[in-house]
Amino acid sequence: MDNFQFYSPTEFVFGMDTEGQCGAYVKKYGGTKVLVHYGSQSAVKSGLLGRVTTSLEQEGIPYVTLGGVQPNPRDTLVYEGIELVRKEGIDFILAVGGGSVIDSAKGIAVGVPYEGDFWDMYSRSVPVKAALPVATVLTIAAAGSEGSSSSVITKEEGMLKRSIGSDLIRPRFSILNPQLTCTLPAYQTACGATDIMAHVFERYFTNTKEVEITDRLCEAVLCTMVKETPRVIADPNNYESRANIMWAGTIAHNNIVGVGRSHDWNSHGLEHELSGLYDVAHGAGLAVMMPAWMDYVYHHDIMRFAQMAVRVFGIPMNFENPEDTALKGIKAFRKFLVEIGMPINFEQLGAKKEDIPVLVEKLGIGEGTRGGFVTLDKAAVTKIYEIAADATL
Amino acid sequence: MDNFQFYSPTEFVFGMDTEGQCGAYVKKYGGTKVLVHYGSQSAVKSGLLGRVTTSLEQEGIPYVTLGGVQPNPRDTLVYEGIELVRKEGIDFILAVGGGSVIDSAKGIAVGVPYEGDFWDMYSRSVPVKAALPVATVLTIAAAGSEGSSSSVITKEEGMLKRSIGSDLIRPRFSILNPQLTCTLPAYQTACGATDIMAHVFERYFTNTKEVEITDRLCEAVLCTMVKETPRVIADPNNYESRANIMWAGTIAHNNIVGVGRSHDWNSHGLEHELSGLYDVAHGAGLAVMMPAWMDYVYHHDIMRFAQMAVRVFGIPMNFENPEDTALKGIKAFRKFLVEIGMPINFEQLGAKKEDIPVLVEKLGIGEGTRGGFVTLDKAAVTKIYEIAADATL
Repeated sequence: MDNFQFYSPTEFVFGMDTEGQCGAYVKKYGGTKVLVHYGSQSAVKSGLLGRVTTSLEQEGIPYVTLGGVQPNPRDTLVYEGIELVRKEGIDFILAVGGGSVIDSAKGIAVGVPYEGDFWDMYSRSVPVKAALPVATVLTIAAAGSEGSSSSVITKEEGMLKRSIGSDLIRPRFSILNPQLTCTLPAYQTACGATDIMAHVFERYFTNTKEVEITDRLCEAVLCTMVKETPRVIADPNNYESRANIMWAGTIAHNNIVGVGRSHDWNSHGLEHELSGLYDVAHGAGLAVMMPAWMDYVYHHDIMRFAQMAVRVFGIPMNFENPEDTALKGIKAFRKFLVEIGMPINFEQLGAKKEDIPVLVEKLGIGEGTRGGFVTLDKAAVTKIYEIAADATL
Repeated sequence: MDNFQFYSPTEFVFGMDTEGQCGAYVKKYGGTKVLVHYGSQSAVKSGLLGRVTTSLEQEGIPYVTLGGVQPNPRDTLVYEGIELVRKEGIDFILAVGGGSVIDSAKGIAVGVPYEGDFWDMYSRSVPVKAALPVATVLTIAAAGSEGSSSSVITKEEGMLKRSIGSDLIRPRFSILNPQLTCTLPAYQTACGATDIMAHVFERYFTNTKEVEITDRLCEAVLCTMVKETPRVIADPNNYESRANIMWAGTIAHNNIVGVGRSHDWNSHGLEHELSGLYDVAHGAGLAVMMPAWMDYVYHHDIMRFAQMAVRVFGIPMNFENPEDTALKGIKAFRKFLVEIGMPINFEQLGAKKEDIPVLVEKLGIGEGTRGGFVTLDKAAVTKIYEIAADATL
C-alpha cells in the first residue's frame, strides 16, 4: 500500500425531504449571502428551487440565483457567475443540481478570489490557492462532485475539457435526497450509474500490490451498482434502489475506495474528448470507452481482471484458463451496459470512426505518453478508440 | 435505507514514517501549545515519543507530556489531564497511542471547557457542548477512536465503563503509520482485529432493509480482516498486512460502514461489563461475547446470518437449509478467533460463570430492555453470558 492522505470533510445530509435543511446548514457553515446555482428550468418547475430558497428565507439568508448550467458545463457561465458573485458581495455558493452544476459552482468558487483568468487553474498553469465555500443539493447520482475535490469545465472555444483538483473545493455540506432522482429519465439514470462504476474502475485497476481493503471497498460499490441499477431502470420510483445508488455514487468518488494505490483515469481522459467533440453525455461516452480500454489493457494483469469477473459479476473462476474468466468479466460488463440501455460503440453513441484522428489530436498526447495501469502512447489511444468504435457484445 | 447524517472531517495521514509530520499538522490545525498524551513507557523506549516531540520542536510548538494511560482508561488520569491543561494554558491535545490513550485524550478535551465534573457527560446527564481539538498518532489498530466520534472511560470507583459520542471529539488529524504496529505482541494484535470486526458486526446486524451499499462495505472490511489477520499473526512484520488492517480499523468505526441503518451494540455493551469487572482486554472480551450473542439472536434473521456466512467466510449456501449455513458462519467466526489466539469462553478469558449475576447487575438492565437487532431483557442477557461462559468450537 502506498502512503496517502485522505480528507473528506463534507457533511453529508442524506434522505427523504432533507433539502428543507439547506438554510440551516448554510448558516452553520457561515454563509451570509448565497449564490443559488442551478441548471435547467426543471429545477424551477419541479418546485425544488422554491423549497431551497424558502429554506434560505426561513433563516433570513439573502440569495441571488443563476441558472442555465448545461451538461459539460461551460467556461462562459463560470465567467458570468464570478462577475455576479463579486458584484453582489456573495460569500457562499450553493449548487442545486447534478455534477455539471456543482462543477460550475466550484469553478465560480475558485475564480472569485483569483485575480487573473480562472481558466489558468483548469489549464494547470497555476494551482488553486483559495475558494469560496461551496455546498450542494444533489439531483443526479453520477459525478460524485458532491463529495469530491475535483471540477471539470469545458472551454466553449474549441470544446476543451479540463479539470482542477483541490481539497479547497470539497463541499462544506451536501444534501442528498434520493427522491429528487426518481424523476430522472432512464437514459440519464443509466449514464449516471455508468459514471459511478467508471469512477471505481479507474481506481480498481492499479499496479499497487496488497491493497485488499480498497479492492474490497471498490468491489462493494460495484456489486451494489450491478444489483441496483437494473432495478431503478425497471422501476424509476424505487426509493431504496435510488438511495443505494446515490450513496454509492458519493463513495465512488470521494476517494475512500481509491487511497493508497495508483489509479488509471485513461478511460475518463479518452472519454472527455468524445463528449467534448460531440456533446454526448459523459456516462454514455464512458460506456463506450471503458470496456474498450479494458479490451486493450487486460493482458497487463489477467488475474486482476479475473478478480473483477469473479467478485463483481459472479463469473465462475476458470482455474485452467484465467484469461477466459477475465474476458468473460469484460463481456459481462458490456452486457450489463446494454441491459441498462447504454451505447457500447461509436455508432450507438453518435460518434464517427473517421474522427478518431481528431480525438487523438485533441487529447494532445503528441509524441508523449499517458501514465496509468498501462502507459499509453498515440498508437495505443488510437487503437482503444478503434476498439470502441467497432465494439459489439 | 434510513435518513442519516455523515460527517468524518478527520484528515488521515497514512503510511511509513508519517509521524514526523505531526508538528506541521498541529500548526495547520491551529495548535499553539500541546498536551502530548501517551500510555506506557514503551512509547518512550521505542523512540516514538521522541520523534513526535522533535517534530513539535521543529515547528516551534511548546508541549507538555502526560503518560500513564492504562488499558480501559481511567477517569482519574482524565481529571489529572484536565487540571494540567488548564494550568498550562494548553489548546491542543495530541494522543500518541491506541484507543485507550485517544479516548483518555478525548475525555480531557471535553472536560477542560466544562465547568462541572466531566463524568456528567459520560453518565449522559449533560451533552457535550465544547471540546479542545484532539489529534492522534495511532499505535494500535483496534478501537477506531482515531476517526470516531466516541470515547469510553472507566470510572475507577466501581469500574464503571461509560461512553460519550459527539462530532466535536472527532480528531482533527490522525497519523497512521502501520510500522508502529509491527512490534505489538500477537495477543494484542488479535484483540485489535477482533475489536475491528466487532465494530463492523454491530452495524452489520441491522433490522433496516435494503441497505446493500453498507452491507457490502461491511463485508469488504470483514473479508479484509479474515484474510489479513492470520497473516500478521504468522508474520508480525508484514507491513502490507499491517497497513490493510490499520486502515480497515479506521473505516470500521468512522461509521462509513454504518450509515442509514439501525445498529446493535449489545455485544459491546455486554463486553464492557466483563472488561470492567476483570480488567481483561476489550478485544478478548468481544471474542467471547460476540459469537455468544450471535448464537442467541440468529433465529431472528437466519438469512442475514447466512449472508454473513457466504460472503464473509466463504461457506457454500445450503439452499435447502439456510439455518445450517447461518450456524456454519458463526462456527467459522469462532474458529477464526481460535486460530488468531483469542479466547472463546469465560475460562479462557479469565472470567467466572458464577459472576454472571454481578455482570447482569452492573449492566443496569433492571426490569427494562436493551434495544438492538433483538431487544434483550434481563433473562436474555443472562442467557447470552451463559452461552459465552460455556462456549466451545
